[in-house]
Amino acid sequence: MSRDAERRAVVLLSGGLDSATVLALARADGLSCHALSVDYGQRHAVELAAAARLASVLGAVEHRVVSVDFGQFGGSALTDPGIAVPQQPTGGIPVTYVPARNTIMLALALGWAEIVEASEIHIGVNAVDYSGYPDCRPEFIAAFERLAGLATRVGVEGEAIRVRAPLVEMSKADIIRRGVALGVDYGLTVSCYSADDAGRACGRCDACRLRREGFVAAGVVDPTAYFDAAR
Amino acid sequence: MSRDAERRAVVLLSGGLDSATVLALARADGLSCHALSVDYGQRHAVELAAAARLASVLGAVEHRVVSVDFGQFGGSALTDPGIAVPQQPTGGIPVTYVPARNTIMLALALGWAEIVEASEIHIGVNAVDYSGYPDCRPEFIAAFERLAGLATRVGVEGEAIRVRAPLVEMSKADIIRRGVALGVDYGLTVSCYSADDAGRACGRCDACRLRREGFVAAGVVDPTAYFDAAR
Repeated sequence: MSRDAERRAVVLLSGGLDSATVLALARADGLSCHALSVDYGQRHAVELAAAARLASVLGAVEHRVVSVDFGQFGGSALTDPGIAVPQQPTGGIPVTYVPARNTIMLALALGWAEIVEASEIHIGVNAVDYSGYPDCRPEFIAAFERLAGLATRVGVEGEAIRVRAPLVEMSKADIIRRGVALGVDYGLTVSCYSADDAGRACGRCDACRLRREGFVAAGVVDPTAYFDAAR
Repeated sequence: MSRDAERRAVVLLSGGLDSATVLALARADGLSCHALSVDYGQRHAVELAAAARLASVLGAVEHRVVSVDFGQFGGSALTDPGIAVPQQPTGGIPVTYVPARNTIMLALALGWAEIVEASEIHIGVNAVDYSGYPDCRPEFIAAFERLAGLATRVGVEGEAIRVRAPLVEMSKADIIRRGVALGVDYGLTVSCYSADDAGRACGRCDACRLRREGFVAAGVVDPTAYFDAAR
């Protein structure tokens, strides 16, 4: 297949369960995938190692990490060591919300998409993971897609880059069932906000709770390694 | 004045003529200004030193530089040493276009605005500087503002952050006249795409050409230092 006939996508890959499923879906759809991880100073850098493994195992063409020293601004439990990651749901928009995180990640993906001539950007936001995050809603994705059409050379000279959020309406259990059917090894993924250096999960934070409940609801054995097995 | 009564803005400050004028306008408007420079791997790093000086001289509350290693992707004469900066206008969207540059910068400004509780973001795009850049158009700014309302905690819980582009309809001569009236020392600014380490300009690139013509049209003596005085 020539380069021109290829369908290319930039896939945002955090190393977590959702974005791994997005990459597997895009590959199953025949897309040539350029995986992008953004290191914005998050505490769970072990996710980036997971992302690199997943990109390779799931057949991405390449994997890049863009570093953004956004952590200097603090403002979130995920980037500011002075804010504790909550162990229980708190209601409202949680302190793990990173200001403008998905806007920043999509903006970087947009720039790279234009360079590699990708026609699509894929991101793993979904309604369950929403948890009160404003930038995980379908209307946010639609607004970014509209912006992308105005922001880029291809939007002006050719066809605008599309933004796909294939998980946006799926439950965590649906996502897991779909990924298992595609052969995704979720043991390679890291979702925990407080994972240790080996990538083992706390089992208690919001991300762990959603993930555990997802495996139970899907009827799939949870392959996650927890650092406190008693939990 | 209490912190709550203060009007705060994040001002994108490149170190060039336009963004210096935007900062001066915002200060004259009584805003408390948080100046943000984005180092996306551009060749003209001397601009960042100019930005720091301007932030101080023009009375910004603080100045931050966010580094984004976007240069790894190439794709523009401003970030890729393998692409020459043109010395003549080329027509169409120029090779100095950095993919998604203003989207990335506005996204970072949006995140910081949310953290410092700024109600506005100011950016120095304008119709003359447009030069074929898609992300300098008023419709791009409007689309980003709409996105900002959906992307953030304040957009959901309070009043959305506004995006101001006060130069968007102004000619370069108008910008210069306005800045001079506000006391901006344009000798501190660096616009050239190929400035040397001392911040001296080539006098020939698109940015220099627009700037020189602006000073002539404004009837203001050009304070720019050129590295080849014969030009």
